[in-house]
Amino acid sequence: METKRIRVGITHGDINGIGYEVILKTFSDPMMLELCTPVIYGSPKVAAYHRKTMDIPVNFSIVGSASEVQDGRVNVVNCMNEELKVELSKPTSEAGKAALLALDKALEEYREGLFDVLVTAPVNAQTVWPEEGGFSGHSEYLQERTGEGKKALTVLVNHDFRIALATGDIPVREISHVLTKELLTEKIAAFSRSLKIDFGVGNPRIAVFGLNPHAGENGPEGTEETEIIVPAMKEMINKGVQCFGPYSAEDFIGAGDFTHFDGILAMYHAQGMIPFRTLAMEEGVNFTAGLPIVHVSPVHGTAYDIAGRGIASESSFRQAVYLAIDVFRSRCMEREISAHPLRKQYYEKKDDSDKLKLDTPED
Amino acid sequence: METKRIRVGITHGDINGIGYEVILKTFSDPMMLELCTPVIYGSPKVAAYHRKTMDIPVNFSIVGSASEVQDGRVNVVNCMNEELKVELSKPTSEAGKAALLALDKALEEYREGLFDVLVTAPVNAQTVWPEEGGFSGHSEYLQERTGEGKKALTVLVNHDFRIALATGDIPVREISHVLTKELLTEKIAAFSRSLKIDFGVGNPRIAVFGLNPHAGENGPEGTEETEIIVPAMKEMINKGVQCFGPYSAEDFIGAGDFTHFDGILAMYHAQGMIPFRTLAMEEGVNFTAGLPIVHVSPVHGTAYDIAGRGIASESSFRQAVYLAIDVFRSRCMEREISAHPLRKQYYEKKDDSDKLKLDTPED
Repeated sequence: METKRIRVGITHGDINGIGYEVILKTFSDPMMLELCTPVIYGSPKVAAYHRKTMDIPVNFSIVGSASEVQDGRVNVVNCMNEELKVELSKPTSEAGKAALLALDKALEEYREGLFDVLVTAPVNAQTVWPEEGGFSGHSEYLQERTGEGKKALTVLVNHDFRIALATGDIPVREISHVLTKELLTEKIAAFSRSLKIDFGVGNPRIAVFGLNPHAGENGPEGTEETEIIVPAMKEMINKGVQCFGPYSAEDFIGAGDFTHFDGILAMYHAQGMIPFRTLAMEEGVNFTAGLPIVHVSPVHGTAYDIAGRGIASESSFRQAVYLAIDVFRSRCMEREISAHPLRKQYYEKKDDSDKLKLDTPED
Repeated sequence: METKRIRVGITHGDINGIGYEVILKTFSDPMMLELCTPVIYGSPKVAAYHRKTMDIPVNFSIVGSASEVQDGRVNVVNCMNEELKVELSKPTSEAGKAALLALDKALEEYREGLFDVLVTAPVNAQTVWPEEGGFSGHSEYLQERTGEGKKALTVLVNHDFRIALATGDIPVREISHVLTKELLTEKIAAFSRSLKIDFGVGNPRIAVFGLNPHAGENGPEGTEETEIIVPAMKEMINKGVQCFGPYSAEDFIGAGDFTHFDGILAMYHAQGMIPFRTLAMEEGVNFTAGLPIVHVSPVHGTAYDIAGRGIASESSFRQAVYLAIDVFRSRCMEREISAHPLRKQYYEKKDDSDKLKLDTPED
């Protein structure tokens, strides 16, 4: 395995929120620079402003591109041509544009291979794309631009506690329309693959949540379990994926059963986010599985209510950097060990000898 | 205040589940009999079977009706004419019928004033009323039979953490149809009243959850917040109820903000149950507010998976008994202190004297 420092591309997110605060606090710890080299896509001036306002003890180098970065330094790539006005705690269209500029610049340099993994600070979806009714999220954006036809799967991660979301940030009234057997089999397959490749779990055990109260079991409380979820699970079990359920989310979490599984598939945003936030508190992160790019973001939002006050916790952001590095290494390892597989060993049928045949060509 | 022992009516629930186990374990502690007198509606033979199977150290007296109970004893009212077959861990129609028989007998005696509060052990909704597609829950049943036209409100309680559910055990696809401004104002009013009368909170602060991801704030993620929830809250604020929100459930719970409020109103089953079960674990209970009868039940179900093994925790059931007693006392206190109110004291308008007028008739 390569031992060079992993380059972590970071986008600054909303400049009026706690983005810079958590980024700079994370890298004010010199140990972080032993582990990786951060490349922050944003504005050196805004970074300096936040640093000064909250008195964060960190130095950074200004570079024009990730190609110029130095290991052992915090690097900021200037993505802004114009002056930016920071208005702490306010949703401004200027901040929205700046967030998107930084993200686009980062993706451009990612395609050139200038960094390894991407960690994004939170944005305000409404200021990034107000005319579209809001930014639909980093996962969707990355899927379109770097997905190479692959589908993104959001996985909430806190150490060994991993919850994937089968549907995105959609209104509650649309959940049951969006949930189909095809969607679910696709999500279960993607989750199983990610648990293997990204998290190094040999043969992952996945718990699947039901959609309705008591997973639809207690009378006339919904039919999606029998019509959609169970058939999708059966199909995947036939393909060799270990999946169990469907479980009632509250009973499952209440009984602490999540410790028995490598991953949990929740049917909708709140069903996954509520238990995750409750259990993971400040440390959880949001991982985008299924895409060629490794992308992680902290689980919190712009947190306008505490922006600029120096009291935001950088735990989640720091964990996001750690996880991005872990997943990158796990994928490298996977590629390395599967690059030159041994020929399958087998016994010839209709041959009583117990000698292994190693030289017969496979079809 | 009266100091006589409070009589707790208890229904045995599903005889194939953990009902008798948690009931008998709770009252195997002699201290419980100092606090109240239990009247178990069920079958003495089945109670004896469970006691023997799990070796629970408790004695009970068999009585024909709550009118014959003795304080300082565990009393079992025989509600069954026929022999009952216990089939541990199995949903049987016999167990369903037995559960309903006990509940009906209890309600009959409640109407005669033979006990003070009702605690119900869990039933299997599908065996109680299979022909109706399942029992719709104790709250609805009590509302119809003892409600005197009042509406039930389910409140999940664990010490000072209280979550009320605006809608019941309905399929996810129906939530947004059932949620109306009228329903919400009614639920907020009932919750506020219950917090005052049942929990003794002077001027309760209620947090209201949104329905959709990020409480609908982050773009096109649903409109119920602006069309239904906020207007309902405004109406109630105008009536003097302190309500706040709508909050994103996961952010609210994740940030630990629930400690700042006397109650939380969740929009649907999972939104309230998931954080509640996650935080309250074994201790939470389910309280039916809004009805003349005080009714509490443990938060767990029949738990067929561990029935008869002696490993079920009686924590939730014991807390249910405690809460029922507390609420009963709080209501008695409320009645007592409001029975003979002092005449309102006021200063006469257009009168410069600062003498209180106490004798002017009110209109």
